[in-house]
Amino acid sequence: MQDILKVGIAGLGTVGASVVRLMAKRDNLLSEAAGRRIKVVAVSARSRDKDRGIVLDGMRWVEDPIALATDSGIDVFVELIGGAGDPAKQAVEAALGAGKAVVTANKALLATHGTALARRAEKKGVALNFEAAVAGGIPVIKTLREGLVGNAIERVYGILNGTCNYILSRMADEGISFEDCLKDAQRLGYAEADPTFDVDGFDTAHKLALLTSLAFGTLVDTKGISIEGIRSIKPVDLKMADELGYRVKLLGVALRTADGVEQRVHPTFVPKDSAIAQVNGVLNAVAIDADAVDLTLVGPGAGGDATASAVIADIADIARGHRTAPFIRPVASLTQPTRAPLTHHEGGYYIRLEVVDRPGTAARIASRMAQNKISLESIVQRRSGPVRGGTDPAAADAPAPVVLITYATTEAAVQRALRSMDTDGVLLGRPQVIRIERS
Amino acid sequence: MQDILKVGIAGLGTVGASVVRLMAKRDNLLSEAAGRRIKVVAVSARSRDKDRGIVLDGMRWVEDPIALATDSGIDVFVELIGGAGDPAKQAVEAALGAGKAVVTANKALLATHGTALARRAEKKGVALNFEAAVAGGIPVIKTLREGLVGNAIERVYGILNGTCNYILSRMADEGISFEDCLKDAQRLGYAEADPTFDVDGFDTAHKLALLTSLAFGTLVDTKGISIEGIRSIKPVDLKMADELGYRVKLLGVALRTADGVEQRVHPTFVPKDSAIAQVNGVLNAVAIDADAVDLTLVGPGAGGDATASAVIADIADIARGHRTAPFIRPVASLTQPTRAPLTHHEGGYYIRLEVVDRPGTAARIASRMAQNKISLESIVQRRSGPVRGGTDPAAADAPAPVVLITYATTEAAVQRALRSMDTDGVLLGRPQVIRIERS
Ligand SMILES: NC(=O)c1ccc[n+]([C@@H]2O[C@H](COP(=O)([O-])OP(=O)(O)OC[C@H]3O[C@@H](n4cnc5c(N)ncnc54)[C@H](OP(=O)(O)O)[C@@H]3O)[C@@H](O)[C@H]2O)c1
Ligand SMILES: NC(=O)c1ccc[n+]([C@@H]2O[C@H](COP(=O)([O-])OP(=O)(O)OC[C@H]3O[C@@H](n4cnc5c(N)ncnc54)[C@H](OP(=O)(O)O)[C@@H]3O)[C@@H](O)[C@H]2O)c1
Repeated sequence: MQDILKVGIAGLGTVGASVVRLMAKRDNLLSEAAGRRIKVVAVSARSRDKDRGIVLDGMRWVEDPIALATDSGIDVFVELIGGAGDPAKQAVEAALGAGKAVVTANKALLATHGTALARRAEKKGVALNFEAAVAGGIPVIKTLREGLVGNAIERVYGILNGTCNYILSRMADEGISFEDCLKDAQRLGYAEADPTFDVDGFDTAHKLALLTSLAFGTLVDTKGISIEGIRSIKPVDLKMADELGYRVKLLGVALRTADGVEQRVHPTFVPKDSAIAQVNGVLNAVAIDADAVDLTLVGPGAGGDATASAVIADIADIARGHRTAPFIRPVASLTQPTRAPLTHHEGGYYIRLEVVDRPGTAARIASRMAQNKISLESIVQRRSGPVRGGTDPAAADAPAPVVLITYATTEAAVQRALRSMDTDGVLLGRPQVIRIERS
Repeated sequence: MQDILKVGIAGLGTVGASVVRLMAKRDNLLSEAAGRRIKVVAVSARSRDKDRGIVLDGMRWVEDPIALATDSGIDVFVELIGGAGDPAKQAVEAALGAGKAVVTANKALLATHGTALARRAEKKGVALNFEAAVAGGIPVIKTLREGLVGNAIERVYGILNGTCNYILSRMADEGISFEDCLKDAQRLGYAEADPTFDVDGFDTAHKLALLTSLAFGTLVDTKGISIEGIRSIKPVDLKMADELGYRVKLLGVALRTADGVEQRVHPTFVPKDSAIAQVNGVLNAVAIDADAVDLTLVGPGAGGDATASAVIADIADIARGHRTAPFIRPVASLTQPTRAPLTHHEGGYYIRLEVVDRPGTAARIASRMAQNKISLESIVQRRSGPVRGGTDPAAADAPAPVVLITYATTEAAVQRALRSMDTDGVLLGRPQVIRIERS
């Protein structure tokens, strides 16, 4: 066996404490699997006195995480502080600059500075591993970096935020509103006091940005992502989805199109019988469509132990001397992605309209859709029950929402059709438009 | 970049031809990802003249695969001939003996000689990679070897044979018999002319043996697997499963119990809302329950391109200089598994009985179950519809099968109860007993 691999960990919160605990638990087995003894020799966090429920015996306490990052006593710097700014950023930069391998779970940091950090790692010839940064315990980075290296990837998409999936799952099961569900999720610890980052889709976008780079060999381009969260989802949308054979998930989706790379985060209708539709509660899932294989990976996207599992795998790879470029190819080979405009997006749509209570409204809607060459799979009017494949003008008297499921069309056509309905004066309120993702 | 990695491929059938084709297609991108040029320099198969639809320009043709295995012009030997015997075995042995890294998709060979081959690889310090041998295009070996190395694994199970899954899926969807379905599968190329290896569970057992070793650090022990195939499954079983909230899958299951390692292959009831229940047709799935994460991986278990994807990933790992021990730990650290006797198996059961048409039969059955401390979740009699949570003696007049779903009990208790019913003379024909796997 080679020398001990000496690990320094900055951040002993939910993830950091689990890493220390699980590494102690696996101990010899981990070293045996990695072919080399692995030891946490130094740690850093804000408050030294906090009881973290872990044994820190034999580990040096270093006050300043940036000092730890360049400490001559460590080979690997594990950053589990979080945040796109300092001290996480400065610490990771310092560690790479000092030629230390780095492991981090910090999606915010990587989504913002991923390319620059990868360049630093490459320059020093050290690993920059971030399995835990996307989908927590699911080994999707390894799968993209190594497992699917023989493939050209066409699309990668997934449920990347457990909080949103928990809320949408409960809203669907219990018919409760977003607001009530969010409150409950906060009470149960599944959502933060400030939920914006999760429910408005930013966390999903950070993870998606990393998946996109890995899948398509592009520079990390968080700004190229179109982002919608789940606040606008109403119980009626989930009920209609169920009736029409779908579930609603907040997805991050990246795909290669003729126009470039399309990256989007939004609530999505997914067919009930798809693998991803079965992924409920806080679970995450990632689906990868490639030329030789289509894969779906399902597992825990967060939680101390699950995330620590990914961090430990990254450390073990370094112990083994395995190093894959952060974004698979050398940074110089990564291309600036052309952003496919979302107006070019092609797919089916769920459209829920509040309409004026007047005869002929449904006919008007159907004709506006037809004018824009949008074929309808179904029109449903809540009071009169589902009417498939046609309109039922008589039912338009009821002051009820009209729900449309379209066949594949473009986002631009949908927007045009909705604008003309608005001009017609048939719409009350803002239409709810949810994209359908084929599986 | 380092020197070119020179690859020799023996076997240019379904998988081998796809490997050659996909490697040519990926070409520079693959080399870039692996940090090193990779080139197929020599190939071998039985008939040189066969049109394989691939370009073999620039590759030497070597008649004898064993000569290719030790050819001084190659660094990696890729064995895609198949079969546990020669020439595959001899070729792989020769290659390892000559210090070549080996990649193989040959589950039969590894299930039979895996430990011995791993020992050879270890002695020479070369890779023995076999991602394609289990679940085709799903990167489950890498996930176990590397991705989950921080975990203690408790159970690994999966749908590992696409032929069986295809047959069971169609039987369930269309209500047709095993025999008719098999014929159709053969006609469509989803089943071999001699289907024994697939439908009787042996192929699943080979793959399970490898997963067990990886998950539990044990020597490959194919003989320790209890194997039942799917021939005995009747449409009525699939119909009852559906009514009771289950689907039927041929699973390979390995779990750590107090008595040792339990390894079994058999048709299984899985809850309809589990991820694995959604895996239909020729798809495969592997679920891994570990202490820090539970994962489910779904994807193509066979097919030229999907399998080639795994082979190419194995080759790329070698190009990168990544080497993990074949069964994670050094062979000397692998333990001989204690076989947990299946009579100790604990779980729920589906039991379908053909019973004599006599009042009191159902009561008799229920009391025999009770005597053996088996609690029933439901008793269903086909003619009288489902009766949950109790027996309905009046309904026993109908000459219909009785279906029981038990709560967790032991295999031994079930066998005892069935023997006493047999002694009571209430049974006609052989009971159908299908284990339920909790998700
Ligand atoms: N939690 C998850 O489930 C999960 C999943 C995937 C990825 N991640 C990522 O993992 C990282 C860590 O997340 P977490 O949930 O473990 O966070 P956390 O529980 O808030 O822990 C953060 C840790 O960093 C320390 N810290 C904060 N500011 C510091 C400073 N200025 N100097 C030194 N130490 C400082 C804290 O010290 P004190 O303890 O002394 O306050 C704490 O130990 C984040 O990047 C997050 O995005 C988390
Ligand atoms: N097919 C799948 O979907 C799949 C999936 C997972 C794993 N695998 C595994 O992959 C391996 C290859 O499977 P396959 O489906 O590609 O098999 P295949 O189509 O039957 O191809 C076998 C190849 O080996 C060659 N071969 C046979 N005997 C030989 C001998 N004595 N000397 C030299 N060459 C010989 C054949 O040559 P000719 O072409 O000249 O006859 C043929 O090219 C097997 O271990 C299988 O279990 C297959």
